[in-house]
Amino acid sequence: MNKQIVLLPGDGIGSEIMESAEKVLDAVAGEFGHSFTLQEHAIGGAAIDQYDTPLPETTIEACQKADAILLGAVGGPKWDALPADKRPEKGLLGIRKELGLFANLRPVKGFPSLLHASPLKEHIIDGSDILIIRELTGGLYFGKPSERQNNGNAVVDTLHYHRDEMERIIDKAFQSARLRHHHLTSVDKANVLESSRMWREIVEEKSKAYPDVVVEHLLVDAAAMKLITQPDQFDVMVTENMFGDILSDEASVLTGSLGMLPSASVRSDGVGLYEPVHGSAPDIAGEGIANPLGTILSVALMLRHSFQMEAEAAAVERAVRECLEQGYYTSDLHITDGQLVSTAQMTEAVLENM
Amino acid sequence: MNKQIVLLPGDGIGSEIMESAEKVLDAVAGEFGHSFTLQEHAIGGAAIDQYDTPLPETTIEACQKADAILLGAVGGPKWDALPADKRPEKGLLGIRKELGLFANLRPVKGFPSLLHASPLKEHIIDGSDILIIRELTGGLYFGKPSERQNNGNAVVDTLHYHRDEMERIIDKAFQSARLRHHHLTSVDKANVLESSRMWREIVEEKSKAYPDVVVEHLLVDAAAMKLITQPDQFDVMVTENMFGDILSDEASVLTGSLGMLPSASVRSDGVGLYEPVHGSAPDIAGEGIANPLGTILSVALMLRHSFQMEAEAAAVERAVRECLEQGYYTSDLHITDGQLVSTAQMTEAVLENM
Ligand SMILES: CC(C)[C@H](C(=O)O)[C@@H](O)C(=O)O
Ligand SMILES: CC(C)[C@H](C(=O)O)[C@@H](O)C(=O)O
Repeated sequence: MNKQIVLLPGDGIGSEIMESAEKVLDAVAGEFGHSFTLQEHAIGGAAIDQYDTPLPETTIEACQKADAILLGAVGGPKWDALPADKRPEKGLLGIRKELGLFANLRPVKGFPSLLHASPLKEHIIDGSDILIIRELTGGLYFGKPSERQNNGNAVVDTLHYHRDEMERIIDKAFQSARLRHHHLTSVDKANVLESSRMWREIVEEKSKAYPDVVVEHLLVDAAAMKLITQPDQFDVMVTENMFGDILSDEASVLTGSLGMLPSASVRSDGVGLYEPVHGSAPDIAGEGIANPLGTILSVALMLRHSFQMEAEAAAVERAVRECLEQGYYTSDLHITDGQLVSTAQMTEAVLENM
Repeated sequence: MNKQIVLLPGDGIGSEIMESAEKVLDAVAGEFGHSFTLQEHAIGGAAIDQYDTPLPETTIEACQKADAILLGAVGGPKWDALPADKRPEKGLLGIRKELGLFANLRPVKGFPSLLHASPLKEHIIDGSDILIIRELTGGLYFGKPSERQNNGNAVVDTLHYHRDEMERIIDKAFQSARLRHHHLTSVDKANVLESSRMWREIVEEKSKAYPDVVVEHLLVDAAAMKLITQPDQFDVMVTENMFGDILSDEASVLTGSLGMLPSASVRSDGVGLYEPVHGSAPDIAGEGIANPLGTILSVALMLRHSFQMEAEAAAVERAVRECLEQGYYTSDLHITDGQLVSTAQMTEAVLENM
């Protein structure tokens, strides 16, 4: 197969980990007889520096034509003081919205050899395997008005949802639960918010079409607790944008290996943007020591979700697992016996295992 | 001193733990020569059953005349299907708003003898001592419009803040940091929300008046992670209503003894509403086995914050600590060697230690 992939390195360690991804894509193409056309474009702080905007038109256009997009990370202290519409994060919010990538998939599953680094006790985190599905293009992060009022003496942000925005993400969640353990936890604040009451109604309506999926409703504050006390009680969790932002990041530290986690932001036709969960890590940028595995596993998600290349995805995931079993680790992975390697060396190890 | 206290037992285990609080207040009055006038009123589901509203006028009026209020808990499955304005939680939101209780204080500090029950590894939770300050009467949980629109095809909730609502809670936080370790973490989502950008500006402005307090800004998603990975790095945390709801509940399970945690909701003149952090626990209501210590420690907070009775508060807290050291525990406290006691027995033990 021939696929068009846009690479958006972004800021900080973004360009270093993107190099690793390119090598893995090359290897997959060679081994499985595909051809991937890679095109690099600017986003975030890097785009601000070069084009005075975090999301240049050329980047949007290239992404619109792509079969899938791979992102490094955006943001950094350098751009923190800029006005709202000129911040690196606007590039990320913008590309999600422009492409209609409404479903953010955040798998949280530890690697046996890294679980000892979890902040949680082993018997608590053991066996956890969660897929958090966050609505990504609606709600408080996009609603208008979002402005100062009353001569700067008041401020308003708006949490707005269309029924169909809720319906499509909830459908996605039920479908995902079907492919896993048939259990769906819907998170809301229905005891206070009208938007949450509508959300809960739609979950109830939809559940009739998925009688094989067990549905549980959880208030967002209770969910924030249960993720820590009983992470192994979740299968698929679905929630709106802001709750999902907070809960998926909370969940991401549970396994003790944030640097390993991939994520996908997809829409219904299969097009998706893939990125590691970790940030741009400006403190170690340029040193060649960043952990490339979150990005490499994001490539695996891309192969699976956007290209239906299941065997290829599994091969990449297996190669990564083997690297860990062989004792290779980067400095973010709290490991003491094994071999500390650079970004490039870890990438080589993955390629050798493939 | 003579103080007027309104008791609001509420639902579930509320009335059982309220009895414990009454006994402790009696003991404090006797021992220290105070007189507390206690008046009981209805709120939540209990008020719905009796008066068809979660917050009767008589309750509001009594609370307005009180020096302090002690609440058990509200809510339960019995009232879950009622329309929005007839739900138990509306009573709680309503009394906070009616009395202007804008600052929710949520101390999170473990008891040495209970830390083994923490879901976190001991070296992670050890030494943590956090005061979370949540804005309680503004933001998304109170903003208008909060309604269906477009024939039920859309929905909106509104995050609204006045400048002075932000200023007073931020001032409160700086003052609290001064009384503790002079470190303040302000949590927002300034990379996306306009309300957060205003919040951050005000924190920066205010910080000039508190040069002895070190200020750190943290995005809400990063805060949700850091609470788990480095809880000992926080002193005072301040944030707006909804973020505070999620983060304070997240933090409440870190020490492994949710049933022990008190909370205070106060305003500037000292009037406050005190309540345990745990919920109404409908599953064990009426069995006489609920843990009364969170409520008893809420009484201690009341003595300290609303009545400036520091010695009295310390005496109550010491008595509670001693109960734990003596090995008494209720069924929610994951203890195996010691003496399992009922609500009444634990209360007796506290009284004996006083
Ligand atoms: C950078 C920011 C706008 C973004 C978000 O909150 O959506 C990030 O935190 C994420 O979760 O991808
Ligand atoms: C019951 C609910 C309205 C309330 C809130 O979210 O404020 C509760 O969760 C709390 O934190 O006190």
